[in-house]
Amino acid sequence: MSREKFVYLFDEGNSNMRMLLGGKGANLAEMTLIGLPVPPGFTITSEACNAYLDNNGEFPSHMLDQVFAALNNLETRTNKKFGDEKDPLLVSVRSGSAVSMPGMMDTVLNLGLNDESVKGLATLTGNERFAYDCYRRFIQMFSNVVLNMDHTLFDDIVERYKRKLSLIFDYEIPAAELKSMIEEYKAVIKEQQQFDFPQDVKDQLVLAIKAVFDSWNNQRAIVYRRLNKIDDHLGTAVNIQCMAFGNMGEDSGTGVAFTRDPSTGDRELYGEFLVNAQGEDVVAGIRTPMPISKLKDELSGVHQQFIDTCAKLEIHYRDMQDIEFTIEKGTLYMLQTRNGKRTARAAVKIAVDMVNEGIITREEALLRVDAEQINQLLHRQIDTSVKLNPIAKGLPASPGAASGKVLFSADLAEKLGEAGEKVVLVRNETAPDDIHGIIHAQGVLTARGGMTSHAAVVARGMGKPCVCGCETIKIDMDNNLFMVNGHTIKAGDIITIDGATGNVMIGEVSMIEPTLSDEFETLLQWANETKTLAVRANADTPEDAAKAREFGAEGIGLCRTEHMFMAMERLPYVQQMILAENLSEREEALSKLLPFQRDDFYGILKAMAPYPVTIRLLDPPLHEFLPSRELLLLEVAELKHNKADSQLIWQKEELLKKMQALSENNPMLGHRGCRLGITYPEIYRMQVRAIFEAMIQLTQDGVKPFAEIEIPLVMDVSELRMLKDEIMDVYNEIKTSSGVELEFAVGTMIELPRACMTADQIATEAEFFSFGTNDLTQTTLGFSRDDAEGKFIPIYLEKRILKDNPFAVLDRTGVGELMKLGIAKARSVKPDLLIGICGEHGGESSSIEFCHLAGLNYVSCSPYRIPIARLAAAQAKLKN
Amino acid sequence: MSREKFVYLFDEGNSNMRMLLGGKGANLAEMTLIGLPVPPGFTITSEACNAYLDNNGEFPSHMLDQVFAALNNLETRTNKKFGDEKDPLLVSVRSGSAVSMPGMMDTVLNLGLNDESVKGLATLTGNERFAYDCYRRFIQMFSNVVLNMDHTLFDDIVERYKRKLSLIFDYEIPAAELKSMIEEYKAVIKEQQQFDFPQDVKDQLVLAIKAVFDSWNNQRAIVYRRLNKIDDHLGTAVNIQCMAFGNMGEDSGTGVAFTRDPSTGDRELYGEFLVNAQGEDVVAGIRTPMPISKLKDELSGVHQQFIDTCAKLEIHYRDMQDIEFTIEKGTLYMLQTRNGKRTARAAVKIAVDMVNEGIITREEALLRVDAEQINQLLHRQIDTSVKLNPIAKGLPASPGAASGKVLFSADLAEKLGEAGEKVVLVRNETAPDDIHGIIHAQGVLTARGGMTSHAAVVARGMGKPCVCGCETIKIDMDNNLFMVNGHTIKAGDIITIDGATGNVMIGEVSMIEPTLSDEFETLLQWANETKTLAVRANADTPEDAAKAREFGAEGIGLCRTEHMFMAMERLPYVQQMILAENLSEREEALSKLLPFQRDDFYGILKAMAPYPVTIRLLDPPLHEFLPSRELLLLEVAELKHNKADSQLIWQKEELLKKMQALSENNPMLGHRGCRLGITYPEIYRMQVRAIFEAMIQLTQDGVKPFAEIEIPLVMDVSELRMLKDEIMDVYNEIKTSSGVELEFAVGTMIELPRACMTADQIATEAEFFSFGTNDLTQTTLGFSRDDAEGKFIPIYLEKRILKDNPFAVLDRTGVGELMKLGIAKARSVKPDLLIGICGEHGGESSSIEFCHLAGLNYVSCSPYRIPIARLAAAQAKLKN
Repeated sequence: MSREKFVYLFDEGNSNMRMLLGGKGANLAEMTLIGLPVPPGFTITSEACNAYLDNNGEFPSHMLDQVFAALNNLETRTNKKFGDEKDPLLVSVRSGSAVSMPGMMDTVLNLGLNDESVKGLATLTGNERFAYDCYRRFIQMFSNVVLNMDHTLFDDIVERYKRKLSLIFDYEIPAAELKSMIEEYKAVIKEQQQFDFPQDVKDQLVLAIKAVFDSWNNQRAIVYRRLNKIDDHLGTAVNIQCMAFGNMGEDSGTGVAFTRDPSTGDRELYGEFLVNAQGEDVVAGIRTPMPISKLKDELSGVHQQFIDTCAKLEIHYRDMQDIEFTIEKGTLYMLQTRNGKRTARAAVKIAVDMVNEGIITREEALLRVDAEQINQLLHRQIDTSVKLNPIAKGLPASPGAASGKVLFSADLAEKLGEAGEKVVLVRNETAPDDIHGIIHAQGVLTARGGMTSHAAVVARGMGKPCVCGCETIKIDMDNNLFMVNGHTIKAGDIITIDGATGNVMIGEVSMIEPTLSDEFETLLQWANETKTLAVRANADTPEDAAKAREFGAEGIGLCRTEHMFMAMERLPYVQQMILAENLSEREEALSKLLPFQRDDFYGILKAMAPYPVTIRLLDPPLHEFLPSRELLLLEVAELKHNKADSQLIWQKEELLKKMQALSENNPMLGHRGCRLGITYPEIYRMQVRAIFEAMIQLTQDGVKPFAEIEIPLVMDVSELRMLKDEIMDVYNEIKTSSGVELEFAVGTMIELPRACMTADQIATEAEFFSFGTNDLTQTTLGFSRDDAEGKFIPIYLEKRILKDNPFAVLDRTGVGELMKLGIAKARSVKPDLLIGICGEHGGESSSIEFCHLAGLNYVSCSPYRIPIARLAAAQAKLKN
Repeated sequence: MSREKFVYLFDEGNSNMRMLLGGKGANLAEMTLIGLPVPPGFTITSEACNAYLDNNGEFPSHMLDQVFAALNNLETRTNKKFGDEKDPLLVSVRSGSAVSMPGMMDTVLNLGLNDESVKGLATLTGNERFAYDCYRRFIQMFSNVVLNMDHTLFDDIVERYKRKLSLIFDYEIPAAELKSMIEEYKAVIKEQQQFDFPQDVKDQLVLAIKAVFDSWNNQRAIVYRRLNKIDDHLGTAVNIQCMAFGNMGEDSGTGVAFTRDPSTGDRELYGEFLVNAQGEDVVAGIRTPMPISKLKDELSGVHQQFIDTCAKLEIHYRDMQDIEFTIEKGTLYMLQTRNGKRTARAAVKIAVDMVNEGIITREEALLRVDAEQINQLLHRQIDTSVKLNPIAKGLPASPGAASGKVLFSADLAEKLGEAGEKVVLVRNETAPDDIHGIIHAQGVLTARGGMTSHAAVVARGMGKPCVCGCETIKIDMDNNLFMVNGHTIKAGDIITIDGATGNVMIGEVSMIEPTLSDEFETLLQWANETKTLAVRANADTPEDAAKAREFGAEGIGLCRTEHMFMAMERLPYVQQMILAENLSEREEALSKLLPFQRDDFYGILKAMAPYPVTIRLLDPPLHEFLPSRELLLLEVAELKHNKADSQLIWQKEELLKKMQALSENNPMLGHRGCRLGITYPEIYRMQVRAIFEAMIQLTQDGVKPFAEIEIPLVMDVSELRMLKDEIMDVYNEIKTSSGVELEFAVGTMIELPRACMTADQIATEAEFFSFGTNDLTQTTLGFSRDDAEGKFIPIYLEKRILKDNPFAVLDRTGVGELMKLGIAKARSVKPDLLIGICGEHGGESSSIEFCHLAGLNYVSCSPYRIPIARLAAAQAKLKN
């Protein structure tokens, strides 16, 4: 940082200098450059700020000299003098870093006034009330913003005067009273600060600059940066600008405006202004501002100039602008411009409209919309204009918002739901036999369980809102209520849950319905024309498959057969299979499951044909299909206590013993995945038989299905080889008996570090790879998702050990490097190997960019995230 | 395989041709070469066998021509003719592959006899009984070995004749009766096989060769190869050799001998022989053979020649030999020689003796002893000569054998143990509060839990035998007994457990005490002079540290602080710490633990000074220190049922809730390791304070300690950086207050794939690495050790998906490659970084070889495996 120039006049900068001058300063310079009416001013650089902060609050040498030289320049231009008793130069002082940070110091206006210069201002403008009102405002702002004094100290004085004079608005207070108020202000300052309000205008300026610099490290700013992942070393610039006065009468005013509607994207000016007011009055809420459309009536002299300026700014910046302006005695001044924040809906419309207007290209339009933000458009959401009072916060397990009557029983939820009532199912945790309740509920709230708990997975699959692991709620099933933070919510009470934030509110909250506009379709169409990654869906039912195609899925990347096992009418057979004492018992249970599975596969393959469907054979540990061991333990104790029928006790105890034998210390690393297929080949044989039989039926029905049979949790090529032999054996049997030849592929999940390390060997036997990044993240980092997300990941994020939750955003450093290693090894033996991803990362935009860079063929994600994935895939292509 | 030569005369081969000629054939050729008296013969190659097996049982062309040409050569040399009615050439046919395989076809003697040639033999030898006895034996062996007939068919006939003639021994049956027996034999064959016993001697030979070839793929051979990991494609050779007859009278005989005692290694001939007998009589057990020392008396004519031959063989082969010999009418013939199998004790003594005798070099001696086998020398073991009847088999959790009274209570075990009784503690599983019982027991048997269960870890640390996870035993605590496979074992009954095999036997079994001979010390001394890897110990107590030094440890590579937390008098404070509601409660509990930890570290650092001690900060999930949640659940249910004091119920329920909050789905991947240090820095601060305070005290006591403070389960450099800051903060406080400077290092375990992938980053902050290969194996393969070893690893081994249990033998393909990647990355930034291994692989010889190859600086293992590690490290150096 050897630069010695710390101060830039607005004429010296431009919009590319935002790192040095901050966003505000760079844009003021840019507007000056393109000839817009900007009051003259200068910017002290963020480098000066950093030097000051690094040097224990001492300005870098020469900085103040440069500041006063620039001030001199302003004096020359305006023919005014800073602190002059006759014609004083007044300035505003505003902070502005490279990234917009609302947590920092705001604005000081009218700096340069003191007991003497105020008189000059009065004389010069012929408006004593105006001058003393400016001085009063300045003292108040300076005290609050620079001296960190509580603003209520001054508000109280204003209120007292208005009461005394029976006035409603501040601007009605006459000059004489203002003078007396100013004396009271100064007395308060003296009392609180032990010094007089600074009369030396240079002192005022220096103190204000210091205050801006110091504000970079105030608590709010630090928290804001942490939350928004903003670099602590950016520093802030300081903008010092000649005042333009919106409070010089009825031909003056001030306002803020967007060049298009930031909430709908409509192409019309949006904003508000106040006549005879200074900047802070618009936001203070004392007077009600007028909509920008009234500008024509109220300040007709500048109206056309204002419209032209807005249009010019939009064309120049090639984006919707958020501007601040002031009109001083009929002259328009621009005080700020920046790209305007907007809702997802507006972002989509503006991007597409601007392409149609010839302002930007399709590629730019695709990059203009935040892929993650469009999630809002796909789910009902809480109206962001409503102020919320959440009573609890859980994990945001499935996006969307829902209101309904609290019910604690799945049966009741089904009954009332079917009767047309809106209900929210509230449980400690859900289990497979709650599914009928979830289907008929608007949403689910659970006290326990993480992002991969049953409730979360099922709800995401159904596109229903879900808040999980909301540990502060205490459910009292006996009394049909739950308690949380002092509230008692009874069954039948209405609550609202927000699955996008995890918030839980009492009562119904206003919501916005999802909107899939024409522009949205257009944008996604452009995305398809741009992206090279295919986008598939994770879908387990024909309904999900159909929904996925609506959203544009090009196949199913993950069809989890275990979710089929969870269905109520099948679970008894699944349990019979698990608890079988021997092969023939197990095969008997499997033969009962076969028709169910065949129907499942028939439906899914049909819904997706001719696109491929990746069907993963049974993956989870078997005890997941059994009832809770703890409950059974208590039941047995109860039965014994009550001296119940000994035969019954014996039966239950036998079941308990079997469950004990099946229970595992770390089921995630236990007897699951292809290990089930190796130890019980008959299970996988039943599943592939069901797949092949369904395919034969489809073929006979004139549909052309394509199945990719996927072996989970492979750690060595020999597992895959052995199971492929079993699959081919079943296929050959069926081919012989039916005479039908089928098209299918056999491949594997890559979800263990060892699979990545030996991907070259595994690739010799695999016809495709699919990275299961949920499990790969668990094993690579040694994080159990269920345990980590609730317990230590939040602390890791807070302490900045992790930048993101690695289960939400793919960890490129660890998991990503392992994937790249695996891809390179696999493609070294099979250059054209089809490789995809089916972990939840497949629907997250940053992870999708990684997948694009790593050379994957497709990503797969839940149906509701497909639009996000399509856009993110296009953006990845455009960015790289 | 274009070789066209399928048959080698003994004169044409040598001992280097064992792959082609098999071990037996190669050594017969070698003995012929060095001029020892070997009956002439030839070998059909294993390549011929493989060609035959590959070609559906058809001999390769020309093979039989070569066989008969070789036979012709034998006829010329012996001046006999194959199948001749006057002077028939008789041969033996024996299988022999490159690797000794007792599961295969054995020997056929006297081939070439038929109804005519037997007469010639009778005339020629003037011994009709001899000739017909030979014929009778031949038919019997041929029928059994070549025709696969049950030998009892013939034994029954022999028994009937002996009963009829009132004879005791076979050789007493007179010629006439033998002839009649032969007719009966032939009738049985005709009846069973539907063909006559082959009279064409060429048919006899061809059938015998086929039988040997086919035997390569019989069930026993396949199972044996699987068990012993022998390549299925070796094939077997066939040795055809002129008969030498040990059954030609009192000047004839046959025997087997070792050139040194295979059980002690003493330098004296060891073996046995029978006068007037053929080979199979020695092993048949009908007559009791004489010890080889009697040879001088019984067959004095050949005694000196025999001794000289043995000496010559030993010098020639440079190893102890296991030989077969026959004496025919005073002439010595050698029929086989091979390196003799021996006990660990003998292996050590023979290797060291042979160096002293100038036969082999020290390097050869080091390579002669199987490192794994010397484990036998370090623990009491079951006498291998005893036939065992195990009633159950569990996991071999801690080597050594123990007998004692069964007790089910740790308190009682302590009481009786202190009173001098030998007891075996039998539990479903052990917990920290059973330790006093384990200390006073001879060994531990548990029904549940794997190789890393509490009982296993504690027992290995104490060097006590332990059998874990013996799931077939059903413990009935109410009646103080356990049942297993129909046996009921009551408290006080004596059992024997073998921690090396997992066997459980009723009663006391004869045992062999461990012997650490001078030769053993010498060999280990040579190992130290050879190896480049340092060997450290895993030790958690001063006693273990002292034991480790006795065994030659050069430091402690892993001191687990959590084992200290488990001690009875500390557990209440540990639990108080875990259940603390806030920081001050937690710090209060920690302050109680500090003096204990300081004393621990004082003792360990002192015992090992000046060698380094790697102290791992707290690693396991906290709920491991809490009582069983299931038991508490039942207790609460019981209390409620009995309407107990509501205050008590409330307390227990509160505890249950806290335990619920702490419980994890996959604790192995949960809130443990450095995650505890990050979330509760005060725990690690207490631990390092204890280390530093102990070091200061030691310094003041004139000891020079060196601590390596180790952070477990690091997945990212920022974890290490943050915790290193905490450590240095505590150090600086202590340095300032005490004025003492200490020597220590801060480093990390590398036990997660992500740590390997980012080892270059981690190395910048680490002063040493230690690979925790237990955890690294778990995460790389996705195997929970607790769940995998009992459930699917045995099946994986059986199906040959895994060659070895990856928790016993380091998986070089997956884990090893990740380690090499990590080492390369780390050394790219710190070329001299100290890197060790502390997983249990550190004591296993094949894994140690890998560590040597991978460039590690040291291995660390349990004290009792240090000698193994030293030897294996030397072998790794010599082999590579």
